[in-house]
Amino acid sequence: MVVQKYGGTSVANPARIKSVAERVVATKKQGYKVVVVVSALGDTTDELIELSKQITDNPSEREYDMLLATGEQVSVALLAMAIHELGHDAISFTGAQVGIITDTSFSKAKLINVNGEKIEKELAKGKIVIVAGFQGMTEDQEITTLGRGGSNLTAVALSKSLGGCMCEMNTDVEGVFTADPRIVKKAQKLDYLSYDEMLEMASLGSQVLQARSVIFAKKFDVPIHVRSSFSDKKGTIILKEAKPMWEGVVISGVTLDKKEAKMTICDVPDKPGMAAQIFKHLAEAEINVDMIIQNISRTRRTDLSFTVPHSELARTMKIAKQIVKDVKAEKVTCDDDIAKVSIVGVGMKSHPGVAAKMFDVLAKKKINIEMISTSEISISCVIGKKYAESAVKALHTAFGLDAKKPEEK
Amino acid sequence: MVVQKYGGTSVANPARIKSVAERVVATKKQGYKVVVVVSALGDTTDELIELSKQITDNPSEREYDMLLATGEQVSVALLAMAIHELGHDAISFTGAQVGIITDTSFSKAKLINVNGEKIEKELAKGKIVIVAGFQGMTEDQEITTLGRGGSNLTAVALSKSLGGCMCEMNTDVEGVFTADPRIVKKAQKLDYLSYDEMLEMASLGSQVLQARSVIFAKKFDVPIHVRSSFSDKKGTIILKEAKPMWEGVVISGVTLDKKEAKMTICDVPDKPGMAAQIFKHLAEAEINVDMIIQNISRTRRTDLSFTVPHSELARTMKIAKQIVKDVKAEKVTCDDDIAKVSIVGVGMKSHPGVAAKMFDVLAKKKINIEMISTSEISISCVIGKKYAESAVKALHTAFGLDAKKPEEK
Repeated sequence: MVVQKYGGTSVANPARIKSVAERVVATKKQGYKVVVVVSALGDTTDELIELSKQITDNPSEREYDMLLATGEQVSVALLAMAIHELGHDAISFTGAQVGIITDTSFSKAKLINVNGEKIEKELAKGKIVIVAGFQGMTEDQEITTLGRGGSNLTAVALSKSLGGCMCEMNTDVEGVFTADPRIVKKAQKLDYLSYDEMLEMASLGSQVLQARSVIFAKKFDVPIHVRSSFSDKKGTIILKEAKPMWEGVVISGVTLDKKEAKMTICDVPDKPGMAAQIFKHLAEAEINVDMIIQNISRTRRTDLSFTVPHSELARTMKIAKQIVKDVKAEKVTCDDDIAKVSIVGVGMKSHPGVAAKMFDVLAKKKINIEMISTSEISISCVIGKKYAESAVKALHTAFGLDAKKPEEK
Repeated sequence: MVVQKYGGTSVANPARIKSVAERVVATKKQGYKVVVVVSALGDTTDELIELSKQITDNPSEREYDMLLATGEQVSVALLAMAIHELGHDAISFTGAQVGIITDTSFSKAKLINVNGEKIEKELAKGKIVIVAGFQGMTEDQEITTLGRGGSNLTAVALSKSLGGCMCEMNTDVEGVFTADPRIVKKAQKLDYLSYDEMLEMASLGSQVLQARSVIFAKKFDVPIHVRSSFSDKKGTIILKEAKPMWEGVVISGVTLDKKEAKMTICDVPDKPGMAAQIFKHLAEAEINVDMIIQNISRTRRTDLSFTVPHSELARTMKIAKQIVKDVKAEKVTCDDDIAKVSIVGVGMKSHPGVAAKMFDVLAKKKINIEMISTSEISISCVIGKKYAESAVKALHTAFGLDAKKPEEK
């Protein structure tokens, strides 16, 4: 049994829907029972959002979900028709119909339960089962959507409810790479990756998979196969424990995030509770603060820096200015000309000196490190944006990730 | 309590949806509990059909319904948002969510049960309830659509389940007229009309309401108010027994149907069972035969004429040619240059001579009558298409339906 998920670009138009149908049928012919999860056609969701914007700037989340859920319903019906056209039996379902039960947080609903019974019944009849991604139903039969990355979550949850079968994420890239192949020509596709590494990569800037579905997959030990919708090549399999591909290599990838900005609150009185007070305000505004650095203080005054997404810059600035007044700091400065480069790998747990090596690589390139943060399996450095690509390339080479010859694309 | 139905042209774009929201809120402010039934936005259904055609010429009806049902779901969500924007409380539902239960004849499902409970619960909270027209759910939770005129049927069925309240059909005409105002300048809007008269008018060519919802309304005695979405004027109320508007006037309207063609099977052996044999073949092909005329036979051979919709002409011709061979008739001829003019009115039951008067009016205009058929409350004549408009005008005048001055539009 396999669950295959196809994103919006994979089903952007009738021609692509037919290609997906052919892939699904080919899998079925290999002897698999196939469950397919699809997103809305290409720009459909954006078009629906545009319609709602013409009505109101502030739509009720319940009605918003009612509206958006139609996008995936269109996709599943069309894909079923395309599979029928190839002479195979298929049946489509909405999230509600197959019992994808969520809580009532409309537009970002959380899964409560997924019932695989109806799907198994149809699979037993020899049918290909197609399920609308991104959507569910509350216990009161209200239609909900799962928010960003929702279709991936649907796919992983179905894999789990169907006994933990492989969950294929068919996307527009060949798999997870050691670095973004657009930046590093010698980047290699990873055959295997652990959940933890994928999580770090996702949170450190890799666009391949959102963290949410990986967290779910990790919790229930659902294997994920990230692969291209447009080729038959094997992609990257994400598992609990992935063996490193190359002996002696301690990191799995280098990531880059240019979507953050650094803010510094200067000359803050250095006394207990100050940081708590500052970040409480940002948390209340639901601003997602990433790295936090507090300089060592010798003067009972300190500088406090943190990074936030570009999209939150204006809101953060407003709040920060109020904080400056409240805590009697000097001022707030902002720098959005930064990039965060990170190295990720479970291997670094058992290899001391990885951080030192990273700093040395950057130093040799004469790149100044503005902020550092570490987790058990990753190290991130904030540097000037103009050095971003050269830093990624240098780290990729230094940690032995370069392919002998560039990956065939 | 009132059920208001708005068709696709009434909600064709965000601006019109806002207008509908204003009408709904105005009704609510008058003290009514309001249930709204809406169709899909303007061309949405056609766009969805076009998408499916790019995939297959022969879609599964189940998947077709899955696809089409999204159209109304978009409308209800947007209308709810528009009502919220006006500061009023509203909640939208799909057909499935409010328990509109149908049989499993996908794409032309028949209503089995409509549960008003969920709606009444929300009305009791002071909310405006918006229900997706045209769609329902089987007992197995399969999504179905109700076929042509489905949204009207949804509205009438909800009126019935909510205790038989008024069912307003908001449409692009002011009401039901004594004749098509585009043909007869002096046509008058009817204040009242009986179900039977409306049914005859619908089946004789009036486009205002399809017969299906009227049959349902008649069965459960649901009053219908046909009115314009774009004005506040009172339209036409359809009831069990409508008093004639004007004393002494025996007919309520003159209708015209130019969408039929006449076929004649010539020189058929005149023996028992012949007609049955001929029309059995047409019925098996689900061809909707309207009028049937068999000439008096003196020679044991006869001509047999009938009318069918233009759209069925090619299929009918093919079957008719086979029939000619089978029954050893001479040939089949076809004339699509015809029109059917009809007069309708419960008043004619108690007024003898109505048919004679109709024939006389046409004779005076030197219009040859090719076929005649009658029901208890209508008389129809097939005439040459070129006489159609003048026949309608002459009948309208002769039966005293002309307004003193042209209806204000």
